[in-house]
Amino acid sequence: MVRYVYDFTEGGREMAGLLGGKGSNLAEMTRLGLPVPPGFVITTEACRAFLTTGGEPPGMSREVSDHLAALEEAAGRRLGQRDDPLLLSVRSGARFSMPGMMETILDIGLNDDSVSGLAKASGSERFAWDSYRRLVQMFGATVMGVDAALFERAMTDLEELRGAGDDLRLDARDLAGLVETYKTVIRRETGEDFPQSPAEQLRRAILAVFQSWNGERARLYRRREHIPDDLGTAVSVQRMVFGNLGADSGSGVAFTRDPATGRPGLYGDYLPDAQGEDVVSGIRNTVPLSELERLDAASYTGLRAHMETLERHYRDLCDIEFTIERGTLWMLQTRVGKRTAEAAFALAAALADEGLITPDEGLARVSGEGLARLMFPRFDTSGDGEPLARGLPASPGAAVGAAVFHSADAVRRAAAGEKVVLVRQETNPDDLPGMIAAQAVLTGRGGKTSHAAVVARGMGKVCVCGAEELMVDTGARRFTAPDGTVVEEGTVVSVDGSTGAVYAGAVPLVDSEVMRILETGETGETGEGAGGLVDAVARALARADTVRRLEVRANADTPEDAARARRFGARGIGLCRTEHMFLGERRKLVEEMILADSPTARDRALAALLPLQRQDFAGILEAMDGLPVTIRLLDPPLHEFLPDRTALAVRVAAAEARGDLPAARDTQLLAAVNRMHEENPMLGLRGVRLGLVVPGLVAMQVRAIGEAVAERLRAGGDPRAEIMVPLVGDARELSIVGEEVRRVLAEVSEAAGTPVGCPVGTMIELPRAALTAGRIAAEAEFFSFGTNDLTQTTWGFSRDDVEAEFFSAYLDKGVFPASPFETIDRDGVGRLVGIAVAEGRAARPDLKIGVCGEHGGDPDSVHFFHAAGLDYVSCSPFRVPVARLEAGRAALRDTGASDSR
Amino acid sequence: MVRYVYDFTEGGREMAGLLGGKGSNLAEMTRLGLPVPPGFVITTEACRAFLTTGGEPPGMSREVSDHLAALEEAAGRRLGQRDDPLLLSVRSGARFSMPGMMETILDIGLNDDSVSGLAKASGSERFAWDSYRRLVQMFGATVMGVDAALFERAMTDLEELRGAGDDLRLDARDLAGLVETYKTVIRRETGEDFPQSPAEQLRRAILAVFQSWNGERARLYRRREHIPDDLGTAVSVQRMVFGNLGADSGSGVAFTRDPATGRPGLYGDYLPDAQGEDVVSGIRNTVPLSELERLDAASYTGLRAHMETLERHYRDLCDIEFTIERGTLWMLQTRVGKRTAEAAFALAAALADEGLITPDEGLARVSGEGLARLMFPRFDTSGDGEPLARGLPASPGAAVGAAVFHSADAVRRAAAGEKVVLVRQETNPDDLPGMIAAQAVLTGRGGKTSHAAVVARGMGKVCVCGAEELMVDTGARRFTAPDGTVVEEGTVVSVDGSTGAVYAGAVPLVDSEVMRILETGETGETGEGAGGLVDAVARALARADTVRRLEVRANADTPEDAARARRFGARGIGLCRTEHMFLGERRKLVEEMILADSPTARDRALAALLPLQRQDFAGILEAMDGLPVTIRLLDPPLHEFLPDRTALAVRVAAAEARGDLPAARDTQLLAAVNRMHEENPMLGLRGVRLGLVVPGLVAMQVRAIGEAVAERLRAGGDPRAEIMVPLVGDARELSIVGEEVRRVLAEVSEAAGTPVGCPVGTMIELPRAALTAGRIAAEAEFFSFGTNDLTQTTWGFSRDDVEAEFFSAYLDKGVFPASPFETIDRDGVGRLVGIAVAEGRAARPDLKIGVCGEHGGDPDSVHFFHAAGLDYVSCSPFRVPVARLEAGRAALRDTGASDSR
Repeated sequence: MVRYVYDFTEGGREMAGLLGGKGSNLAEMTRLGLPVPPGFVITTEACRAFLTTGGEPPGMSREVSDHLAALEEAAGRRLGQRDDPLLLSVRSGARFSMPGMMETILDIGLNDDSVSGLAKASGSERFAWDSYRRLVQMFGATVMGVDAALFERAMTDLEELRGAGDDLRLDARDLAGLVETYKTVIRRETGEDFPQSPAEQLRRAILAVFQSWNGERARLYRRREHIPDDLGTAVSVQRMVFGNLGADSGSGVAFTRDPATGRPGLYGDYLPDAQGEDVVSGIRNTVPLSELERLDAASYTGLRAHMETLERHYRDLCDIEFTIERGTLWMLQTRVGKRTAEAAFALAAALADEGLITPDEGLARVSGEGLARLMFPRFDTSGDGEPLARGLPASPGAAVGAAVFHSADAVRRAAAGEKVVLVRQETNPDDLPGMIAAQAVLTGRGGKTSHAAVVARGMGKVCVCGAEELMVDTGARRFTAPDGTVVEEGTVVSVDGSTGAVYAGAVPLVDSEVMRILETGETGETGEGAGGLVDAVARALARADTVRRLEVRANADTPEDAARARRFGARGIGLCRTEHMFLGERRKLVEEMILADSPTARDRALAALLPLQRQDFAGILEAMDGLPVTIRLLDPPLHEFLPDRTALAVRVAAAEARGDLPAARDTQLLAAVNRMHEENPMLGLRGVRLGLVVPGLVAMQVRAIGEAVAERLRAGGDPRAEIMVPLVGDARELSIVGEEVRRVLAEVSEAAGTPVGCPVGTMIELPRAALTAGRIAAEAEFFSFGTNDLTQTTWGFSRDDVEAEFFSAYLDKGVFPASPFETIDRDGVGRLVGIAVAEGRAARPDLKIGVCGEHGGDPDSVHFFHAAGLDYVSCSPFRVPVARLEAGRAALRDTGASDSR
Repeated sequence: MVRYVYDFTEGGREMAGLLGGKGSNLAEMTRLGLPVPPGFVITTEACRAFLTTGGEPPGMSREVSDHLAALEEAAGRRLGQRDDPLLLSVRSGARFSMPGMMETILDIGLNDDSVSGLAKASGSERFAWDSYRRLVQMFGATVMGVDAALFERAMTDLEELRGAGDDLRLDARDLAGLVETYKTVIRRETGEDFPQSPAEQLRRAILAVFQSWNGERARLYRRREHIPDDLGTAVSVQRMVFGNLGADSGSGVAFTRDPATGRPGLYGDYLPDAQGEDVVSGIRNTVPLSELERLDAASYTGLRAHMETLERHYRDLCDIEFTIERGTLWMLQTRVGKRTAEAAFALAAALADEGLITPDEGLARVSGEGLARLMFPRFDTSGDGEPLARGLPASPGAAVGAAVFHSADAVRRAAAGEKVVLVRQETNPDDLPGMIAAQAVLTGRGGKTSHAAVVARGMGKVCVCGAEELMVDTGARRFTAPDGTVVEEGTVVSVDGSTGAVYAGAVPLVDSEVMRILETGETGETGEGAGGLVDAVARALARADTVRRLEVRANADTPEDAARARRFGARGIGLCRTEHMFLGERRKLVEEMILADSPTARDRALAALLPLQRQDFAGILEAMDGLPVTIRLLDPPLHEFLPDRTALAVRVAAAEARGDLPAARDTQLLAAVNRMHEENPMLGLRGVRLGLVVPGLVAMQVRAIGEAVAERLRAGGDPRAEIMVPLVGDARELSIVGEEVRRVLAEVSEAAGTPVGCPVGTMIELPRAALTAGRIAAEAEFFSFGTNDLTQTTWGFSRDDVEAEFFSAYLDKGVFPASPFETIDRDGVGRLVGIAVAEGRAARPDLKIGVCGEHGGDPDSVHFFHAAGLDYVSCSPFRVPVARLEAGRAALRDTGASDSR
């Protein structure tokens, strides 16, 4: 026989799944001997049964009656008893906190009779009628479905009539009248009377709470918070206690420590002569909790003692709700309290110092996302300006600068010492110099994984993208906000990449101390009790480094990025993209190569690129001396290095239409662009395919790598280049390129007089590569998952094209819990990763496996990669500390040591 | 102890893997008691060991010596014996025939001494020196690596000197001198003498044959024919017999039946006084085999008897090589003969009639590709005009018509009764009317799965594509051939889609009788011994229909196509594409829908499309009455229905540059095109994504389907529409659309007063769909693999973009054995198919599973789909008979009944 009801004395916090968070914690407090008004919990299982069948599960109502009888027995009063009624609260409580999303009904048991009994027993007519008024109002709205605004309007009308500023000014007669008004409203709206039977009130209240699990608000909340829809809510039924019985009563909320900073000391708010919901709703001004000591020293002392008990018992910051009824303190709720990122780190360190938790538990309680938030400068939140607009918070941090609308302007002004914000409709690789020069990037189009967003995150640069409310007119060098504000070039704006807000003018900035310490690399333990946020962060990272199995590398294309990544703790480069080295000045040479009309011309262009590439590689190998540097051969389609086809065609056509002769180079370029045009360049001639059809390209790049290694060896260095072949779909592609790599390296070794060997591996970024990983592993010394491309091809949508168009619809409709470009799709892409790891390792047991997509720096994905058995993750330099921390936390899960509160 | 050598008397044809085709068949003939010169075979295993280690495997040379000794013993002569030398031939023979790809050395055993012995024993000085000359020449070129041209030049020089027209005019002294010359050449080129030791000659000849397995020609041949590289060749060592001993000697080749038509009766060529290689090399003119009866009646009779023995024994057409040495007939080779498609069908029927094979064996011996070739008109090959150019043979058949360069011209001229060939640089959906109107399509660009090729094959229309030698100038309405011929609009050309050839002028055509019969549907058995090709084809198809498990449907978008498909034997439509119904006149309405600036405007456009779609569906359902019709909801990105972006931008810019006002519609369209532009439309807003974000689109299409079903029901029909949702990647997408489908169908049922239900299923065309097929199957009543898209995403290349660019390089380099768009890639795409079938069926045991990609009509792929457990394949109407035949053949494989020759 399934059991659906548990008394508080029978449960505990280990039963959160069955009793919900609130119910199980009430039981836990009861077990600890804290003063909790007695009550019982109806399980989530009952709720699920009700929602599935539409009726109460068999036996539930009998169990409720039995528990109610016990409650009445203990209280010596019966529910709704005429002279001194027992009153009940009925509250929702799901496994995961969903504050305000579901229903609560208080004062169950009052009716036209018992209200007088309550008045007599409490000695307050006004209190009794106010309680009855509350019940009718809540029950009418929640259980009977009457529009809550009708009740509020009736009260406001009455207050206005009485000239009362708040509800305390209404007297018992007013409130009794209000009850009548409410009852009339209910009858009019529902054709039904407010039920006078306390038992019926209770039964209907319980079912209404069940029903509220599927309310619109609750569903939306769950979708946003990734809470499963099939958990259901538990219902707590508890004896009412009253904080609204006069000056010696009241209600409050409290934290065992400051949830914003983690600093010790009680922290909270108190409202005399009020019920709990009045504290939260802000209908009257609360006083700080410290006031309570003056108002009611005994209760204050008791509260402190209870909170200390709770913190030591839960071994964490707790928040509580309490009520004082005529000098008697009652604990109504507790839970592990939410906290800011800063507080999370500080608390973890402090509780470990106090011996309450182990360092591993401390590590489990902080998060990479929290760390990321602490790494960026923030706007001083004391300012209260309204933003001009909001876009997507694409790369966190805060930045202030003059708006500029072209990459070249950004470079010019920045060179002159000005701080600038680059504003574009969207960015492309040509905007890179401007993005580097700017403090922040703001775009009118594009999702969180648009070019602007990805590149900005890679650089740790503030970015707000997809700010569609802004009319960006780069031609006119201005944008217009929805309120009509026009921001011309040079106007100072402030951009908050953590919230997506864009402000006019300069909002004051606060620098990140955490960032300063991370960048200088001082992340070791800084000694006993040094305290402070920075120390706490350093200790969490040090612990993570001790326990993690995953190595962390960085994606970096320049010596500067490589050096920074190393300071952030990267143990190598997992992805060095060579195409970024083909931009800027060198673009001309790439154009020459593409336009070459003879092997000689092509070889000449390649030969000119060789020393430049060699120099790039030598610099990066020097910065990462002694650590692996995985260099990816050229990946993008070559036409990416040529001008846009439509723009070029328009230029040529316009010149012709004017009767002018178009520039010869334009005509030549247009012919090349047309010849190379692809309908779907992402699925075209790129990656290893380039290497197999463009003669000399692989040889040039490999020679540059080999010669750079030789140069570093001569200089006494320890260069560890690895050559990575992109977009392989079949082992044969890799074997052909691998042969050429070995041939060229042999030549370089010969010429250098010293052996220059580099491991050759491949990206696994096509489904076919994953599906044939066993054969590919025979040719590859390492795998690196390119999860961006793998996500694109597995789902069949391109990051550039679809995000803005339909991702928001897909998130709304629940197709994705999160963009699969941000957090790895375990069922699809993740399954391919699993296949490739298993079959790759089966074919080559010492195969080194990493990931170098954007997912390498995403916390949830890091946990997945740990579980999938990868050797390392590689991410942008600024995400390296995040990945280190999460890799450590992932390792804790294996040992079960994570968090046993 | 591994054994490396087998005497002919020890082997048989069941040992083809070990002894090679030639060796095992020589052994088989020996076993049958036919006159085969004695000899032995060195196994493929010995070859593999040699190629792996670079040396003779241990024991092999001893085994060779032993077998040689036995041969000498039996012959009563020794190898190279001075007075009457035993001479040997050394020939390659792999498991699969590789004619002319590897080496042969004859007359082993001759040297400066034994040549005189041979002269004496044969009674012919000239013969002896000619044999010695042949040995030195072959050995020099093959074993010692001398350029064969040097020998040929020496012989030609001598012939010119003697005024001899052919080698027969050279006398013994001439030939003796030639041997000296050859020996000098060898010494000069290699620094080594021609070996006089017969044993050394034999050893080196054997190893040279081994080595020739890895020759350039042989490797290329194997790659083209998909023969594995690791089989190795066997080597036959056999006593020489001589057809060049005078007028009572000779050599010939013969077939047991006519390999072009399958008609009974000996068929072959004979060359008196010649060795076998002279017959093939064509140095002198052969006579028909029937002449032999006159020249040597006894040998002719013997030959006939032996050939009858062979045909009855092998139960198939055999071809043989024979030599008559001074009136004695020797059989030198036999094998199952290659044949034309026509002969294959005729033979299968005839042998079954004769009781030599079962009907299943007959079915196993014909092929879908052969059938396809028989279905198209052919050019009368008696003409001998040189083609203007060659492109890719993209859709078989032959057609003649006036060249036109624009779709509209094709339509106009065809309407006037003219036959036209549409010539384009490449085609797009706008060219569809012209393609329908034309006899053939010829393009300058694009691979065998380009738009032109795919659409043409779907229509059974002749197509040659990617004819890159032609300079197609559609603007000037002409193309230019490499020889300078300019073909202007209206000039008649002939296009051969089976060979890729394009001719100037009208080449005479022969209609396909097979096609006529198939289209009229008379494919049942037409009675005993009716004979003829048409009957043979009908019988093979009837047998296939009896044994096959796979159902065959067609891809068809119009009532006409549906009716034709039904005549070809399709049992339903597996893919009815609705986007083709959005073209032509209706494009305007689609534009309205896209450009709609309000829900009302969009609804109006959709409402206008509704009756048109309903009419389409009703027609198709009528044509396929009683059979399933799977209708796919709109799939392509909407901008495919708008003009090309660059062309439009150029038009607007040109108008502006001229100072004109661009057309308002152009400006409006350009804005829409720019807004909807996608970098990678294949990976963009299409398929089910459209359904989820374009309000009303799914509802309109489903309503049209539902109303069409209701209309057909009212008319007393049996409509069986199925609704297919494209591009699903996650079960949730399908569940959302499925809900809408059911809602709309309920409305239609309500309005029609009769229940209108359609099964809802999905395409499996994304890797993620396959990887999550279990969950998708919970929402889908059927799966249909869209293997075109699935190939694109699994490999990460788009059919449109990459074929021309790098597929030829990939085929050359052996990355693919065949384009994965033509023949399914079993390792990658096939693995996903396997996963989806297994997990889909596990979740829903009655799930119906088919395929509707181009692969559904490809023979090899049909076998794969049969093995994968699919329920049906769907292909273009013209491929339906091919698929039926191959589905039958695939089923035979399961029973092992396929072919046990």
